[in-house]
Amino acid sequence: MNELRKDYLLDRWVIIASERAKRPTDFVVKKEEYPVGACYFCPGNENTTPPEIGRIEKDGRWTVRWFPNKYPATTEKNKSASKGLLASASAYGRHEIIVETPLHNQDFEELPLGDMQEVLEVCANRIKQLNQNKGIKYVLVFKNRGREAGASLAHSHFQVIALSKIPSLVEKEVQASRKYWKKTKRCILCDTLKKELKSERKVYKDKNTGVFAPYASRFPFEAWVMPKRHVKNLDELKPEEKKSFTLAVKKTLLSLDKMLNKPPYNFYFHVSPKKGDLHMHLEICPKLSIQAGFEFGSDMYINVVPPEDAARHYKTGI
Amino acid sequence: MNELRKDYLLDRWVIIASERAKRPTDFVVKKEEYPVGACYFCPGNENTTPPEIGRIEKDGRWTVRWFPNKYPATTEKNKSASKGLLASASAYGRHEIIVETPLHNQDFEELPLGDMQEVLEVCANRIKQLNQNKGIKYVLVFKNRGREAGASLAHSHFQVIALSKIPSLVEKEVQASRKYWKKTKRCILCDTLKKELKSERKVYKDKNTGVFAPYASRFPFEAWVMPKRHVKNLDELKPEEKKSFTLAVKKTLLSLDKMLNKPPYNFYFHVSPKKGDLHMHLEICPKLSIQAGFEFGSDMYINVVPPEDAARHYKTGI
Repeated sequence: MNELRKDYLLDRWVIIASERAKRPTDFVVKKEEYPVGACYFCPGNENTTPPEIGRIEKDGRWTVRWFPNKYPATTEKNKSASKGLLASASAYGRHEIIVETPLHNQDFEELPLGDMQEVLEVCANRIKQLNQNKGIKYVLVFKNRGREAGASLAHSHFQVIALSKIPSLVEKEVQASRKYWKKTKRCILCDTLKKELKSERKVYKDKNTGVFAPYASRFPFEAWVMPKRHVKNLDELKPEEKKSFTLAVKKTLLSLDKMLNKPPYNFYFHVSPKKGDLHMHLEICPKLSIQAGFEFGSDMYINVVPPEDAARHYKTGI
Repeated sequence: MNELRKDYLLDRWVIIASERAKRPTDFVVKKEEYPVGACYFCPGNENTTPPEIGRIEKDGRWTVRWFPNKYPATTEKNKSASKGLLASASAYGRHEIIVETPLHNQDFEELPLGDMQEVLEVCANRIKQLNQNKGIKYVLVFKNRGREAGASLAHSHFQVIALSKIPSLVEKEVQASRKYWKKTKRCILCDTLKKELKSERKVYKDKNTGVFAPYASRFPFEAWVMPKRHVKNLDELKPEEKKSFTLAVKKTLLSLDKMLNKPPYNFYFHVSPKKGDLHMHLEICPKLSIQAGFEFGSDMYINVVPPEDAARHYKTGI
């Protein structure tokens, strides 16, 4: 039976449409090809990107490079804000790109585990460094894979957007965590993780990390990766936790790739703002459905793959 | 300069990316073709849809038909709800289709004005009738055009989803209206409309209706159509207001079609819930951009067409 389900933290509701439930093979994953031609992110074309902020080198060649986005969503001028019916704020911030592999056709999850871990360390360092800027209130790290998921370039890359305002979605997650804490003296996502890893929505776990298909998954095969210990940000992970977290991400994404023939996807880190406490996690959102009139008009979602089914399919590939 | 702007009612922020602003000709509107074959919604195939709820006939042939969706997002069983970390509610409701033309290739805005008005009257009546069901708290009427905008069938149609829960987005709009009313004794959208029709975001107006590109447009060429008089729902429009509203919708959509070669779009009505007061309006959202990691992770949007530019382009086609 179809059912409305609420997100753990947010007042965000999803219709889990069990009555029209679909299997992985029901999805015809169409992937639009990228135009053939020179790639801005390939070795040899480093001069086509804005000046590099940093790189990791091995044997005299770079393996990871990061630099400002040529077309930033943010601005470097800190304009004053206005209030009232036409309220505005400064779009001050930074918008950066992390190219995580020199190989044009290599996906993030195809990197060796150690290399993946290095990339996540770069992400952790960018968050830490950008947060030192007084004008910055939040740093969002995310990845789009495939044109359908909004990646305008084929060569695998992360994006980092540092903002002068905490996104309201994150702010609401922090508030919900605080509210639960006040009542229970426990973290809502610590409790959620424990509960979900015992449920049929569990995808994978080891000593330090858990993966599950969230109860109110907005998207078919949505999956969240979460450290078991209550950590607020990526840089708080201890070496063994980092390795475990990276392995969990790798296993989940490779299982998704196998199940749906490398579908387009988005993922993003939800970490704590500089002020505020949110149990850090990664949300993986495969792009298999289209948000349309219903979703835009209601902020609700219709998901034709119950997370219990999604988890079962994920597990067969792990 | 890029700027963060807030929605009139919601805590929803948009980056208006003026620094990378685009014109209509910058958009390559790709439209995936629909498979050729029998159409469930064409005359002669009425037996392929669930039993009809109603129709309008002219000269012995139907011009508008409505019936339950074969694959409803809602369910007819009113299941009880649960609370706590795994909160659920009943997906009880109705999901209906309104086919607004017998012609397979005719778009809504291409119908004669009187026919368009009749369709909107059907929408008004469905909202009214479904609201009489005690289990129903809200009725959302929307349209998806084009595959990219989520329309699985080519033949033009509206969708009606009646829910046992007010969508939180609508609930928040009602709350914001109430808050403004308490402070000013005026309607926030009445004030907004007056303000915007004097601004460079004005698209069109006549005696009864105004159209504008909203200040914090999420999408390139987003446009809102609003009755000038404070009406809560579609059925409250007087005959001349109805005609004016329909004409405004027609002019806006035809201008959009001209400007961007019939792009995919979504639109939806935001009407008042049974209990609560919201100034009724229509939100038109052309589908020219992809929601990706940034949007899903932040609930913010990046819009590369400032609404001031959008309004200017709309006006040249009206």
